[in-house]
This record gives sequence, C-alpha cells and structure tokens, in this order.
Amino acid sequence: MSIQSFHPPVRTLMGPGPSDISPRVLEAMSRPTIGHLDPVFVDMMDEVKELLRYAFQTRNDLTMPVSAPGSAGMETCFVNLVQPGDTVIVCQNGVFGGRMKENVERCGGTAVMVHDDWGAAVDPNKVEEALKANPDARVLAFVHAETSTGAISDAQTLSALAHQHDCVVIIDTVTSLAGSPLMVDEWELDAVYSGSQKCLSCTPGLSPVTFSQRALDIVTSRKHPVQSWFMDLNLVLGYWGGGGKRAYHHTAPVNALYGLHEALVMLQEEGIENSWARHRKNHEALRTGFEAMGLSFLVPEDQRLPQLNAISVPDGVDEAAVRNILLNEYNLDIGAGLGPLAGKIWRFGMMGFGSNQTNVLFCLGALDAVLSSMKAPITSGVAVDAARVFYSAD
Amino acid sequence: MSIQSFHPPVRTLMGPGPSDISPRVLEAMSRPTIGHLDPVFVDMMDEVKELLRYAFQTRNDLTMPVSAPGSAGMETCFVNLVQPGDTVIVCQNGVFGGRMKENVERCGGTAVMVHDDWGAAVDPNKVEEALKANPDARVLAFVHAETSTGAISDAQTLSALAHQHDCVVIIDTVTSLAGSPLMVDEWELDAVYSGSQKCLSCTPGLSPVTFSQRALDIVTSRKHPVQSWFMDLNLVLGYWGGGGKRAYHHTAPVNALYGLHEALVMLQEEGIENSWARHRKNHEALRTGFEAMGLSFLVPEDQRLPQLNAISVPDGVDEAAVRNILLNEYNLDIGAGLGPLAGKIWRFGMMGFGSNQTNVLFCLGALDAVLSSMKAPITSGVAVDAARVFYSAD
Repeated sequence: MSIQSFHPPVRTLMGPGPSDISPRVLEAMSRPTIGHLDPVFVDMMDEVKELLRYAFQTRNDLTMPVSAPGSAGMETCFVNLVQPGDTVIVCQNGVFGGRMKENVERCGGTAVMVHDDWGAAVDPNKVEEALKANPDARVLAFVHAETSTGAISDAQTLSALAHQHDCVVIIDTVTSLAGSPLMVDEWELDAVYSGSQKCLSCTPGLSPVTFSQRALDIVTSRKHPVQSWFMDLNLVLGYWGGGGKRAYHHTAPVNALYGLHEALVMLQEEGIENSWARHRKNHEALRTGFEAMGLSFLVPEDQRLPQLNAISVPDGVDEAAVRNILLNEYNLDIGAGLGPLAGKIWRFGMMGFGSNQTNVLFCLGALDAVLSSMKAPITSGVAVDAARVFYSAD
Repeated sequence: MSIQSFHPPVRTLMGPGPSDISPRVLEAMSRPTIGHLDPVFVDMMDEVKELLRYAFQTRNDLTMPVSAPGSAGMETCFVNLVQPGDTVIVCQNGVFGGRMKENVERCGGTAVMVHDDWGAAVDPNKVEEALKANPDARVLAFVHAETSTGAISDAQTLSALAHQHDCVVIIDTVTSLAGSPLMVDEWELDAVYSGSQKCLSCTPGLSPVTFSQRALDIVTSRKHPVQSWFMDLNLVLGYWGGGGKRAYHHTAPVNALYGLHEALVMLQEEGIENSWARHRKNHEALRTGFEAMGLSFLVPEDQRLPQLNAISVPDGVDEAAVRNILLNEYNLDIGAGLGPLAGKIWRFGMMGFGSNQTNVLFCLGALDAVLSSMKAPITSGVAVDAARVFYSAD
C-alpha cells in the first residue's frame, strides 16, 4: 500500500449541495487549530451563535451548529422533542419527509403522514385536516425547501395551523437558510435545522439549529431521557449554552467552525435580504435561459425554490450521460433525481457563493452544447444570450 | 452587529486533544470542495478506508470514519450493538466508562459496572468475575486509553476474556490509535471507535470506527431497529460500503475528510510502528524532565500512556493559575483534571504531530519557569537539561 496525498479537481458545484465555496471560507478552514475549551475559541462560539441568529432571523438563545451534518440536525430535533407514544404529523412531498417519518418511528412515536406530490408544495388544507383528525398530536414536521424537488412550502401558514392545534413545529430549512426568506421568530417556528453546505456556502459537516422557548420547555421537562447522548440538548447546552462555565461535552470540530464563522461573516457583510435577492435574480436568469432552450421545470412557478432548479429531462435524452459529460469535460457537477424522480429530472443548484452570473452563463452554455451534440429536442444556441439580455436589462 | 473574520492565536497544543496539527493537514482542509458523490471523491473514500485499516491493523471491511466527533463514534457502537433488555458489562476507570454507561441505558440496556480507581488500568480479574456473574451479558465495553487519567488497559486480555464468555467487545481507542500498539485483528476486537484529533493529528470532528464480522452479524440481524437513523450502520454502509453503487445517506464532511486522508498518508509514510516508538521516546524524555523537577505521575509506570501524561499538582500550587499563565504568556495549552481529579492533576498530551523534541523541551522549560516563579516545591532549572541529556544519549 502506498497512497499519495489527495488533490481534488476544481469543480463548479451546481448540484443539490455542497455548493461552491468562497476562497475566504476554504482559507479559514486551514487556520491553526486551538483547543475547544480555549477562551478565545469560546468567544468565537458566541460569535457563531450571534451570526446564526441573524441568518435565522431569531433571538432564540438556543441557536448553534450541531457538530455533524444536516441529517444529525434533523435527528437532534426529533430525539429531543418526540417521546415514546407521541403522535407526530409529518408532511411528505419529497425525500426528506420520508426521513422525518423514520426519525419519528425510531423515537417510539407514531407518524401520521400527509402526502403531496413530489414537486408540489405541502398543502395547508390537508395539514389542517390531519391536525383536526389527530387532536393528540403535539408536533407538526415539514420541509421548508425540498432539496429533492425544488419546491418551497408556506412555512408561516403551516406554523400558524400547528399552533392553533397546540402543536410545535419541526422544520427542515437545510436548503432555504440564506437562500429564501426564512423568519424564525416572525413565523414562530419552534425547532429549526439546516445545513452548512447549501446557501451558507460552507463546507459540509455542520447543522445549524435554533429552538424556540416553547420547544426548549419540552426538552427540559421530558420524562423519558433523550435516547441519544450525543444529541441530547440538555447536555449539549452545557457546552454551547451562554452564561457561566462551559462544560466539556464533546470535542467541537474546531476548523469546520472557523469555516462556518467566515461564511456567516460574509453573509452579514452582504446582508441577508441582499442574499435572498441575489438567489432570486440568478434563478431568474437561469430560468430565462432554460426556457429559451425549451426546457421545463418540475415545480409550478409559484412554488419554485430559486436555489434548487429541477428540470425535466427532455424525451429521448440519456440523463446520466449528460451529467457524466458535464462532470468529466466541464468539471460541472449537477444533481440527479432521487426516488420516483430518478432518471426524470436534473437538479441545478444555485446556492450561496455559487449563485452568480458566471455560473449561470457557464452552465447554460455547457448544457446547450451537450444537449445539442446529442440531438436533444431543444432550441440550441439561444440560452446564453437570453440570460445575458436578462442581466443587461437589470 | 458587526463581527469580523476570526484569526486564532498560534498555540502549542499539549492538552488531551486536539493535538498539534501538521501544516500538511491544515492545507489539505482548504483544498477545493467537490461533491460527496463525485467518483473522484468516492475513490478517495476507498483510500481513507484502506489507510484506516492500516492504522487499526485490521482487514475489517467495515472500517470508516463516522461523520461526527468521537462521542458519536462511541454512540454508533452502542446503538448498533445494544438492544433493549441487553446486559452490558461496562468497565469504568475514568470519565469515558461513565459515558458508556449512559449509552447503554439510553439504548434500553442494563449496564453492569466494573469499577477501578481513576488512574488505574481495568483489572481483568474483576472483569472475569463480572462475566461469570452475568452469563446473559453479550457485550463487554471498556476504554483502551483513558484520556481523563492517562492509564492504558490490557485490551488483548480483556478481549480474550469477553470471547470466552460469548461477549463481543466495544472498545474506546480515541487516544490510543496511532500512539500506542493497537492490533484490532490480532486481539480480536469487535467494535472499535477512535477520534481524529488525538494521535492522528487531524482536526477534530471525525470518528474512525472498525467492526469485526462478529459485530457486523449482530448489526445486520437485529430484531429491534437501531434507534438512531444517522448512526444506523445498516444505512451508513450503503454510502461507505464497498462494491456497487453508493447510495446517498448523508452529506459527508468533504474537507474534513481531505484532512483525515492527509493525516493518514503521513502515518503511512512514517510507519505505524515508528509512530508508536516516537510517542514512547518523547514520553520518556518528558518523564525524565518531570522527574528531575520532582513531579510525580498519577498512573503507575507499567500502566502509563505515553501520549497522555497526568501529573499531580504539587502541594500549595494553584493549578488553574499555572494553566492560565502557560496559555496566556506561552501560548501553551495543557489540560486540567476532570471529575474527582479536577484541581489535582494536569494532563500533558504528547500526541501525533505534537509528540516531538521541540514540544518536550519547550513545555519543560515553560513549566519550570512558571512553577519556580510561584515558589512551588520543585527542583528548578534541571528539567530541560535532563531531557536534553536523554535525547543525546539516544
């Protein structure tokens, strides 16, 4: 065995995440490691919490990154809020609602499923019916921005419904945070998790979460211990909580947190409303190009996420071959469909640092060339110009 | 709110971890992020697995890093191997045995505790008695290298006892991996977890694990589902497992894995036996200096970990004040005592990249100066020379 140092190719990341990362964030990852209980590090943790509060638009005290990827952030919400015997209403309109169901069941709860089509938003009417039909439910769980389809749901309306029926809300904002308006306090969201590698444009591996007082009260008054030691917020708060002495819980991923800190400083510099507007604008440019080519979106226009564009594969086109050519010849990484959408869609991410004009024009040009070379049923040679005209008119 | 980029001080890390990190590993962290399903990345994952097999001295197929810190590696072992109603024999001779007990109970199992003094190795006689007294037990759990005390236990003997009584072994090797001899196959260890930030000298945040076929058979034949979705090896293996197509489970911490890959390449270049010998030699130099000063170890010589040196605080010395001066004036980070040892010991880590002559001489000189300035009851001015003589004689 003689394995050499690994030097990755330089890709353009326009899949469902990780997204393109600023050189500032990559450089921050390589700063000297210090101890996870070093007073200087503890001060930096406080800054990360404050910057996350800004990103989430909340004043929640319990706002921090879980030291593991978004799936662990999801599990942190469920293991802390769901006890054996609980009924949880789970909305599914893509991959991640299904994962929520798994989480509920592994906590000993019962998941009452509310299904919508993959590619549609969650239907508030169906949710209201489920809440009425299950008066014992105490949690409503749904995905704000479905990464598997590119649909956004109306979090504010769903949250209001939940509270009318004495439920707390668990919400997946992995792909929405910093890319689409997300107002944790104004919308009264209770347990919110996200990921570092989408519109925050940090490296993958951390899951920002924020808990309302209503959610925290449930955690601290549980009768049944949280089944996970690693994710038990009663313990994690001893390390990440404010105020007095920090207690050792686990060893924080120091350098990954340097990266998240830098990504959040960049978000603060840009301003969150400007970040939302940038994601919207570059999505519209990309859409203009796709539509000029004759490609169509999976998701109806009013339910579309700007940062995740699911495009139907044209008839007769080998979708995997297109992705392979884009990856191998253009170093352009786009996403495939998942589950029932496998083979039927491509997913183009326009997230965080990667949501920019260069990527839009590059991607449209590359896709145009590859599809044309395959004799796909598209209008060739017009997509890039259409997007350029869009930008010029701005 | 206006928070600036974070630039950490440059510390010398001689606490219980994270340890000093090679510039090669820090630079690797900042290489361009690529997708977690990119074929180039998947090939790198295979290399990480192969390099970890070398570090663990195993041919186990299931050898991979859990995408979270060591505490999640511990929990991965327990949630996969312990089912509700199971009896588990847990040895405790420091902090981490207590954490194992928590894990057993949160899995619905019963922990039968075998206690040894903090600072002593696990006593095989007591373990044998517990195994005989609990014929229904199917798991023995213990810590190979207790980071909270610096004691090493005889993993080979304990593993043989467990197998004689039809138990599998869960073993914590967080601080031993790459620092002390650890022979997973030869010693027939079943479920082994470690951490990236100790003697591998990688940044914190990953937990290498390896499972024997005996352990894996238990995981795949469970009747009760694994309570954690994130840590369920039946699912994780779809992503990290060899052979066919990789299935998306969670988004791997791409850049952290670049760092681990580089740290493991460095271990391969040095040779694992040479790494063990280096840890031993620098420990002996440090010990020579401490003893010349008149300081004494918590742990008896034959049970001492070379990479974690627990030193009794001399009478009348304010241990926290010493650590603060070392941190603030020397940028030297050492560890405090935990639990019943709080205020009574210091912990000096000599781990991985940080186990070198420069750190030994620097640390002895700094400690000598600080203790002398406090009029501590030590022999001043001789420790550094004693260590230099040790190195010269080598």
